[in-house]
Amino acid sequence: MSSPRADGVPALAWSTDNCTVGRSMAILGERWVLVVLREVFNGVRRFEDIRDHGGIPRQVLSDRLALLVEHGILVRVPYRPEGQRERYEYRLTPKGFDLYPVFVAIADWGAKYVADPEGPPVEVAHRGCGAVVHAELVCEEGHLVPERRDVAPRPGPGVKPRQESSSAAR
Amino acid sequence: MSSPRADGVPALAWSTDNCTVGRSMAILGERWVLVVLREVFNGVRRFEDIRDHGGIPRQVLSDRLALLVEHGILVRVPYRPEGQRERYEYRLTPKGFDLYPVFVAIADWGAKYVADPEGPPVEVAHRGCGAVVHAELVCEEGHLVPERRDVAPRPGPGVKPRQESSSAAR
Repeated sequence: MSSPRADGVPALAWSTDNCTVGRSMAILGERWVLVVLREVFNGVRRFEDIRDHGGIPRQVLSDRLALLVEHGILVRVPYRPEGQRERYEYRLTPKGFDLYPVFVAIADWGAKYVADPEGPPVEVAHRGCGAVVHAELVCEEGHLVPERRDVAPRPGPGVKPRQESSSAAR
Repeated sequence: MSSPRADGVPALAWSTDNCTVGRSMAILGERWVLVVLREVFNGVRRFEDIRDHGGIPRQVLSDRLALLVEHGILVRVPYRPEGQRERYEYRLTPKGFDLYPVFVAIADWGAKYVADPEGPPVEVAHRGCGAVVHAELVCEEGHLVPERRDVAPRPGPGVKPRQESSSAAR
């Protein structure tokens, strides 16, 4: 039914039960989650600052921060402003920093397709040389693969044959 | 309040009104959208096949496909199975193919953090050499930038100063 892949195994024969894109999107797949992460990646770390700058409703922000802390993407770090009660700021963990390519890939696509005519409001720069950074496809042999037709999905180490009972929502 | 960035402009001073991450996530920021795209990237293109293989409720799939067609990410292409009425399959446009780095970046993160012990069920290979492909940060001078601390956001060509009235939800 589907196109055969590079190695001749049709994708329809693979189970999606252990799909790591689906599992990732169960955490990340909500507009406000990436907007919260955008703020933290850009150095805006305190609840009131994130709420105000990101324009995020208070309860939504509280829920999303709790989710990101629960999944180990952010950690809550206490601080105490002069003369006030203790508050928290949110910092990226290594697991959170590893989302940087996701964030840059979304920003690249956005800059190309949904930016105002003058361009995107923010860009990410390489500290070493100052040039703008993008998310590019690179293979483990070190080849840059700019052409989408030069990549193909294939079953990975965790592939499972599909069973008819495996079509529950995921 | 926030950390000063590489060029000394605090992110809180930037407007988020024209943020291209926020605008992209208004299209993509929903779990099922990326699951639908996963199916199409993997060569599963027909409504019933996507619904069945992705485990996506019929109405959800219908809505998400309409959204992706409306935004020019997928196109509907008719086909007629032998002896049946005309049906449609969904193919990626160039705008859709340009989401491949987003998809690979999510899959990379998922393989590291949410995979079963044996690994991810699917991997993306470079057709030229067979090696697995990842989404990496590369600057426009061609430097691979594996270290997150070596990149920093800065105002882009479309940056706008923030106005107090600009804190509506976005």
